[in-house]
Amino acid sequence: MTTFPPAVQPGDSIAAIDTPALLVDLDRLEHNLAGMAAFAAARGIRLRPHGKTHKCVAIARRQVALGAVGLCCQKVGEAEAFVAGGIADVLVTNEVVDPAKLRRLARLTARARIGVCIDDPVGVERLAAAAGEAARDIDAYLEFDVGAGRCGVERVDEALRLIDAIVAAKRLRFTGIHAYHGNAQHLRTPAERHHAIDAAVAKLGELVAALARRGVPAGIVTGAGTGTFPFESASGAYAEIQPGSYVFMDRDYGDNVWPVETPRFEPSLFVLTSVMSRRSRWAVVDAGHKAHAVDSGMPVVAGRPELAYDRPSDEHGMIVARDGEPLPALDERLWLIPGHCDPTVNLWDWLIGVRAGRVESIWPIEARGALG
Amino acid sequence: MTTFPPAVQPGDSIAAIDTPALLVDLDRLEHNLAGMAAFAAARGIRLRPHGKTHKCVAIARRQVALGAVGLCCQKVGEAEAFVAGGIADVLVTNEVVDPAKLRRLARLTARARIGVCIDDPVGVERLAAAAGEAARDIDAYLEFDVGAGRCGVERVDEALRLIDAIVAAKRLRFTGIHAYHGNAQHLRTPAERHHAIDAAVAKLGELVAALARRGVPAGIVTGAGTGTFPFESASGAYAEIQPGSYVFMDRDYGDNVWPVETPRFEPSLFVLTSVMSRRSRWAVVDAGHKAHAVDSGMPVVAGRPELAYDRPSDEHGMIVARDGEPLPALDERLWLIPGHCDPTVNLWDWLIGVRAGRVESIWPIEARGALG
Repeated sequence: MTTFPPAVQPGDSIAAIDTPALLVDLDRLEHNLAGMAAFAAARGIRLRPHGKTHKCVAIARRQVALGAVGLCCQKVGEAEAFVAGGIADVLVTNEVVDPAKLRRLARLTARARIGVCIDDPVGVERLAAAAGEAARDIDAYLEFDVGAGRCGVERVDEALRLIDAIVAAKRLRFTGIHAYHGNAQHLRTPAERHHAIDAAVAKLGELVAALARRGVPAGIVTGAGTGTFPFESASGAYAEIQPGSYVFMDRDYGDNVWPVETPRFEPSLFVLTSVMSRRSRWAVVDAGHKAHAVDSGMPVVAGRPELAYDRPSDEHGMIVARDGEPLPALDERLWLIPGHCDPTVNLWDWLIGVRAGRVESIWPIEARGALG
Repeated sequence: MTTFPPAVQPGDSIAAIDTPALLVDLDRLEHNLAGMAAFAAARGIRLRPHGKTHKCVAIARRQVALGAVGLCCQKVGEAEAFVAGGIADVLVTNEVVDPAKLRRLARLTARARIGVCIDDPVGVERLAAAAGEAARDIDAYLEFDVGAGRCGVERVDEALRLIDAIVAAKRLRFTGIHAYHGNAQHLRTPAERHHAIDAAVAKLGELVAALARRGVPAGIVTGAGTGTFPFESASGAYAEIQPGSYVFMDRDYGDNVWPVETPRFEPSLFVLTSVMSRRSRWAVVDAGHKAHAVDSGMPVVAGRPELAYDRPSDEHGMIVARDGEPLPALDERLWLIPGHCDPTVNLWDWLIGVRAGRVESIWPIEARGALG
């Protein structure tokens, strides 16, 4: 409910920013955005970046300006924020079965092309009912579970029946197959990730072949994340990739080993924090659970390998120094690279863009807390 | 940035609430509020509940109406929200050393009695400088580390020097000692928690005795949380208790064993979630990391001991059934008791109060995201 922006202006020194604060290094952000756009252009693959990571219209617009076909998101509330921000093509890479949510989704078709995933016959019926009120047909994607073990149809025969139902439904356009392998993104070595995507592609191939035997085109096969997109892109099976985290990166992605031939993304997202208590054997900073997410492990202190962030509590984090190195002083500011970027961004209402030591932009995170 | 309230009205059925949503069972909330108020009144101990848990003016006002002397909070932004909401006595149970933050704190004295903690000589100097601009003296508490190992002075001699500095400073009122043993709150058995508080009281006793030898009254000794307040209250060493989580409880506190003679607090806080995908061996609900905090472990499904919430991702949670019990159906709604209440509340802009199957209140969480 912090509806007022941070009390800094473009041009102010970073030293003027109250802590804790969520910062994006604009040089690195632009490097990451350009790197993925160039990769997609060179491979001739559609890029539909995932907006669940940044939830921020300013970044979504930059992605589209660099050639993205549209955005992905996970929630109807996120789709509303992106459409309100002028994004003309939004795919909800998730199941939506609540009729009230589907009516909201249908209303968005007045301003944008809208897609959504389906993994249940009830989803087809309800989406078709909502689409009856829509300004244009809704893009329906069959979600196929290629290894993530979360949503999505698990068997080919079940997938074929659902696709038949989608094709038969009025006002729905069977647009393609959503096949995202979430569990593969943080397998640490490229070989492990490649192996997981090979298995996904093999399973996907069975469905596509079965569809071909019936004369039904598979449409746009879409999926892939920041950890695996080179493999889906090279597979020939995917027409579109959906990476999200590449814009910011985080400690967890930093722990991956990367293939040499892919773009080098740099951590661009930081929680700026201050030492607010300096004890004899540790320092205490003003960023804890309410400032960054630890579901994927601890943050690291950027540029300070001798320091470790440890023992977070709700509003505090403990900084310890390794090997007898000195602790940071009272007031000293540290730049934390969060353990996990997506849920960290969701804690903040504003993202402060910095470059060359100064504040350059203050962007609202429009879809923060858009959970429904 | 979800500045619009949920699309329900008082009187609507709970079935009309869009999911996920943050709910408080008002009967249980009132039971918990009354139980702690009665405990404090019976023991003749001051109750200053911690507002970091709920961040909500409506609940703070109820606590004061039931006899609380004021509220605690951890951040200047929280103090601003509570003072704006009419709370006349707010203690920041934390160090504030940033001069800009201290000026904000000093401004609040125009409308409220304000206290803050100190564990460093720099803190005294800066607080005194800010207090020069304040409408009234600021309450300064020496924070003494009685076992938490976070902020706070560790040694008696150091504490005495700091208290001398506070007493000597103009516009500061040495009001007491903040002695909170955070690490003791979730020791599982009452005997372990009692033992930890005995050790805290012993260490505190050394400081109080040293002060007495100098003729300096220790003032208000304040501390204690939901896990340990009966022990601090019975110790004779504490004048004031600061429990926060008792209003909501959570799974982590539910895992504690409680002494028989203390009030029985009930879980009152829930994340209402829906099954949005039903697979063969699991069901997927629409609440993940962005809807509840897992830093203290997984939530439980209220009233459904046969179901377990597992493998959260950012927007999803997996529900599995034990012992061959049936999985919940598509659309079925589950009430999750979060693993940790404080950082869960901080994810939400609105708290929906429910009673007897209906929406009764929709409260803004004014201090959500107030991190600075």
